[in-house]
Amino acid sequence: MTDPSQNVRVELGDRSYDIEIGRGNLARTGEFIAARTKITHGIIITDARVEQLHAETVRASLLRGGARVDLIAVPEGERSKSMERATTLWNQLLDLGADRRSVVVAVGGGVVGDLAGFIAATFTRGIPFFQIPTTLLAQVDSSVGGKVGVNLPRAKNMVGAFWQPLGVLIDTEVLKSMTERDYRAGLAEVVKYGVILDAEFFAFLEANVAGLLGRRHDVLRRVIARSCELKAQVVAGDERDESGLRAVLNYGHTFAHAIESESRYDTHLHGEAVSIGMMCAAHLAERLGRVSPLFTQRQQRLLEALGLPIVPLDVKADALLAAMLHDKKVEHGQLRFVLPTRLGHVELVGNIDPGDVKAALSAQ
Amino acid sequence: MTDPSQNVRVELGDRSYDIEIGRGNLARTGEFIAARTKITHGIIITDARVEQLHAETVRASLLRGGARVDLIAVPEGERSKSMERATTLWNQLLDLGADRRSVVVAVGGGVVGDLAGFIAATFTRGIPFFQIPTTLLAQVDSSVGGKVGVNLPRAKNMVGAFWQPLGVLIDTEVLKSMTERDYRAGLAEVVKYGVILDAEFFAFLEANVAGLLGRRHDVLRRVIARSCELKAQVVAGDERDESGLRAVLNYGHTFAHAIESESRYDTHLHGEAVSIGMMCAAHLAERLGRVSPLFTQRQQRLLEALGLPIVPLDVKADALLAAMLHDKKVEHGQLRFVLPTRLGHVELVGNIDPGDVKAALSAQ
Repeated sequence: MTDPSQNVRVELGDRSYDIEIGRGNLARTGEFIAARTKITHGIIITDARVEQLHAETVRASLLRGGARVDLIAVPEGERSKSMERATTLWNQLLDLGADRRSVVVAVGGGVVGDLAGFIAATFTRGIPFFQIPTTLLAQVDSSVGGKVGVNLPRAKNMVGAFWQPLGVLIDTEVLKSMTERDYRAGLAEVVKYGVILDAEFFAFLEANVAGLLGRRHDVLRRVIARSCELKAQVVAGDERDESGLRAVLNYGHTFAHAIESESRYDTHLHGEAVSIGMMCAAHLAERLGRVSPLFTQRQQRLLEALGLPIVPLDVKADALLAAMLHDKKVEHGQLRFVLPTRLGHVELVGNIDPGDVKAALSAQ
Repeated sequence: MTDPSQNVRVELGDRSYDIEIGRGNLARTGEFIAARTKITHGIIITDARVEQLHAETVRASLLRGGARVDLIAVPEGERSKSMERATTLWNQLLDLGADRRSVVVAVGGGVVGDLAGFIAATFTRGIPFFQIPTTLLAQVDSSVGGKVGVNLPRAKNMVGAFWQPLGVLIDTEVLKSMTERDYRAGLAEVVKYGVILDAEFFAFLEANVAGLLGRRHDVLRRVIARSCELKAQVVAGDERDESGLRAVLNYGHTFAHAIESESRYDTHLHGEAVSIGMMCAAHLAERLGRVSPLFTQRQQRLLEALGLPIVPLDVKADALLAAMLHDKKVEHGQLRFVLPTRLGHVELVGNIDPGDVKAALSAQ
């Protein structure tokens, strides 16, 4: 049943690591980790839902390798990405006798990966960790690149670190347990990679909508590998999000963050907000004469074919604009957006007129 | 009034930075920072006591450079090195409109430096910061090397990061405002550098006890610069405390942490505990036949001449041993100590018999 895995290397000097994508990989966790670090004490951090579905497979594999294994399951959902939960976890690690040689294994979606990664980044000033993402969104985005952290009550991802995993292990099989809505939301980030970096990949997605929606293993392996590869290239050139290169990954995200924030994170899934945000960005780019209406249409058609929303629900343009001025990527009050110039290419554009942003928001 | 400053370079690749030591340096903060980064928004983090004494000088200097400057004073003392205080600070930074280009300036002792550094390391995944240490201990130790963090209720420095400052500015003049007891405690770490790395420096200290106790500027500048230089060399070779090289800086510290922990951090100042800890380590080394009684005597004589304690107050050997087994530097339960082989040279020694440790603790 196990097809060959595909390997993607994230090149970051002495912090380089592999992303391995294949079917049935969860059961290989022990070998994957043991090949990369000495593990005598593993701490699996997961959530209540993933614990039932997948974490036991990971635990069994680690135990076979002879490590002591502890498992901590946090409540499911974004609320666990808080300083309160982090504080509980740090104390739990202390109770478990964790030390600088213990290894954190994050098994779950983006919330679990970000939270567990932040714990790993900060416990005794940093211990090794591995990512085993179990949602499509986490597999193609949040598990790659080393951004970890938690939310403050009034601002997402405001406290965190750059802390690279020693490896990322991806199992396409686990995606079968995702709800249709969650799964589709993850596809938004996949589409994003095509738009910002790879027109050919975008065309591949257009040609494989049925395979994507049917969660076909061969299509998924290829799509996840290419998404990770594209993200890895960007991250390798701008690990700490400083040069502006990594900013291209935020295509649609300034809008998305505002949409999520204004709908209090309960109307739209992140991927859905990204889908809408990409449409806002496309409209803004069109308005500024950077792309033709054809670009916008093609992006919209693919997003719709994948069952993704393209207009925000119940949120006003004024409120969105105000929220955007609060985004931590807004430096000293200047509105900047990642905007396309053609399919497969985007640029960071500064000094955008708020009036144009409002118009783009209303273009929907 | 301003004599020439002495400069020490910490070589850490693209994270290299200068430590500048001189008289009256606080008033030069603005220039020092502006020479190293663009500063439009500075956030001074200090404590209530230092705010009165020194932070205003720093603020005035930054304002002269044209930056917007905010100042946050935390309550004085180790209790501020907590997750609760950190959470308050992150939210305060958010309220002040801090973003990725804001610069944190830590003005205070070790508590302020560790706390402010941790805030800088984690706010929006890391923003630039500068250290302006105002105690002798912070000047020769905690402000150099990038270790930042806070305590958990049951474990010191358990949550943190390695986050290098962009520069460290040291003013010998501020030491005049220290209490005699605090000042002398700082001298323990100075003596430590001589013992672990530089017999000649140790001899210089022996010959300059009067100048040290009199806080003579010329003696202080030389002693602080050499201490920083020695620490910088070690840090450059082992930035993340991984190779074992940086462990030499922990001479006396496994004992000291246990003494501090067992006396609930209110009987001994850190430097006092280090002084006692160095004596414990010397006794242990002597017991293991690694040094002669002469070594122990010479170390004891200098510490006593500087007014430092050499035996712990009101703490039992059994309790200290138990606390040591809890230290985060104890890896998987193995007791390891930094022990001298001669003046100016120490080694990390593993597999120490707990019986020998107890005997060394009772040798006092």
